[in-house]
Amino acid sequence: MSLTATEEALGTRLEAALRRRLSSHTAAAEKYGAEFTELWRVAAEHALGGKLLRPRLLVDLVEALSPAPLSAEESGSAIDVAAEVELLHFAFLLHDDVIDGDLIRRRGPNVIGALIADRPDVPAASTLHWARSSAILLGDLLLTSAVLGFARVDVAADARDRLLSLLEETIRETVAGEHADVALSDGIMAPDLRTILATSAYKTATYSFVLPLRAAAVLASSSSATEQRLATIGRHLGLAYQLQDDLLSVFGDPDEHGKDPFSDLREGKETAIIAYARMTSHWEGIEQHFGRSDLSGADGSRTRDRLRECGAEAFVRGLVREHLEAASTVLNDAETEGTLPTAARRTLQALASRVDGRER
Amino acid sequence: MSLTATEEALGTRLEAALRRRLSSHTAAAEKYGAEFTELWRVAAEHALGGKLLRPRLLVDLVEALSPAPLSAEESGSAIDVAAEVELLHFAFLLHDDVIDGDLIRRRGPNVIGALIADRPDVPAASTLHWARSSAILLGDLLLTSAVLGFARVDVAADARDRLLSLLEETIRETVAGEHADVALSDGIMAPDLRTILATSAYKTATYSFVLPLRAAAVLASSSSATEQRLATIGRHLGLAYQLQDDLLSVFGDPDEHGKDPFSDLREGKETAIIAYARMTSHWEGIEQHFGRSDLSGADGSRTRDRLRECGAEAFVRGLVREHLEAASTVLNDAETEGTLPTAARRTLQALASRVDGRER
Repeated sequence: MSLTATEEALGTRLEAALRRRLSSHTAAAEKYGAEFTELWRVAAEHALGGKLLRPRLLVDLVEALSPAPLSAEESGSAIDVAAEVELLHFAFLLHDDVIDGDLIRRRGPNVIGALIADRPDVPAASTLHWARSSAILLGDLLLTSAVLGFARVDVAADARDRLLSLLEETIRETVAGEHADVALSDGIMAPDLRTILATSAYKTATYSFVLPLRAAAVLASSSSATEQRLATIGRHLGLAYQLQDDLLSVFGDPDEHGKDPFSDLREGKETAIIAYARMTSHWEGIEQHFGRSDLSGADGSRTRDRLRECGAEAFVRGLVREHLEAASTVLNDAETEGTLPTAARRTLQALASRVDGRER
Repeated sequence: MSLTATEEALGTRLEAALRRRLSSHTAAAEKYGAEFTELWRVAAEHALGGKLLRPRLLVDLVEALSPAPLSAEESGSAIDVAAEVELLHFAFLLHDDVIDGDLIRRRGPNVIGALIADRPDVPAASTLHWARSSAILLGDLLLTSAVLGFARVDVAADARDRLLSLLEETIRETVAGEHADVALSDGIMAPDLRTILATSAYKTATYSFVLPLRAAAVLASSSSATEQRLATIGRHLGLAYQLQDDLLSVFGDPDEHGKDPFSDLREGKETAIIAYARMTSHWEGIEQHFGRSDLSGADGSRTRDRLRECGAEAFVRGLVREHLEAASTVLNDAETEGTLPTAARRTLQALASRVDGRER
């Protein structure tokens, strides 16, 4: 996908905003010695270089929602909030990786993996403990810093209060979703379809879609009716995105999505696909391979075929379609009733198309 | 120690403020199901019932620093900030316990231990993972909530800015201290005396002493000279407190301090006592028992005697004395130069006496 000049300019500004924040953390860390400074160096390496989907969405939408072109101050505030949203995402990933025991993300080592690779001289058990503890602590600082960033953004007092309440709700819901996800994987909660769909929405859709959309509404001084509409659209698009992700992991082309083709099956990840399959007569044949870390390629392919045959793939594709359609309906209604300007409708339709056609 | 009526009234108000916060978290958690609500129930059980040293100190000092009796609003803001300081302490303890693998605190199960006890039906490895992950996530929410609480406190904009900067500095320094502590225990950093003293100051003194003292200065609209003096006093008292704690763990009466008499030795905890002993010719005889989880009572007593003979106990007692004297000097200077009112000097002297004579 090639970027337009405007998209490139926004990317550059967001990167600069992130770099400024990370440099200031690194500078403040130096007082506390080499190890703590190194932690921030590794953090900067991993926090930069992403696609910046969430912050781009936020800034694009502030522009689309605003009746007039943004002033330099308004644009600066949007970039500031967007940068904090990206760092919040990074904080969540760090604690998520600690909880899941992951050392890899996007085909490379994650922060924990990189810290381990930095210390070939230390015994493995100690390095692992050190790297995971470092990731907990780094996540704590990034979380703190995102909340402080929201508290300090240069907007009117009532807009700041709205942003802080939105952030509070978002963090609570994301943490509740992650907590439910752990409960599912540890057998504390039953993996029924309703629970799994709610968990996906809480864990991912809320901070990745609803937060940027609602924050944009606050920054553009939109009405609370507009903010409500955007929340609903964000929830539908976010859930469609997460379900697409689950489908891609199991049925997608590994060359395109870049993950181990059967990692979700090996990990025994409780997704909507699995929840549906559990309710069918094919489950017995799937269950024997589900959650086996030694799953062979042949058994993996066979299990995938069974997930197709039992109707789980078609069912989840149907859910994706439903959520995209629901988003589209709200989008059109909102434009008709005048709660959403045409430019904003276009931005969100482009997002829906990306979710629909995504290959990761 | 019996409490005066004023002390009791303050305790009641602080407990009520904490209870309000925890109830509102629990109510908001209900939407996300039984497990998440249960997590907050356990949190409330553990967050209440402490001695509230930090928040009491903060409120007492706001009163002592203020030229006139506090208005209801001023007093309410002091209670609010004090409650957030206590919850921040709780958030740090949670992540600390995850990192240290601890299941016990103050002779009873900590949050992790309580969550495990709640689930006798689930296999041990899953419950442990579930309980630790829950503690990470609960800590994240409490940390978020403490920062939001500071951001929302009802004070003038410039006071709020000062409070937010103070909080940012405090959290960074505490996390840096915890990070160094992990580096010491995992053999990533060399355990020399200077590093250990700095780590103790960062990890404990900063948030337990410097934060309440400086926050009180901001809330009482004291000058920045007063705030500086209080920061110095807090650092000395906090370090004296931590060193007393190290001494009590090794040389104190277990019936009084309530810990396993040799737990620090068994864990191989890098304290100032150990750092001093390492530099003496007695180290060889101590080292063979240091960090052994199977240390017997007899070997523990012998090791303790060696730590006395090598001069480590006397050295650390000397450090405690030095820091208490340094605090006292700054206290007197500040009163003489007029940066500290007499009432505040008395509050801090009482605190110094408690640190000096403490038996936990």
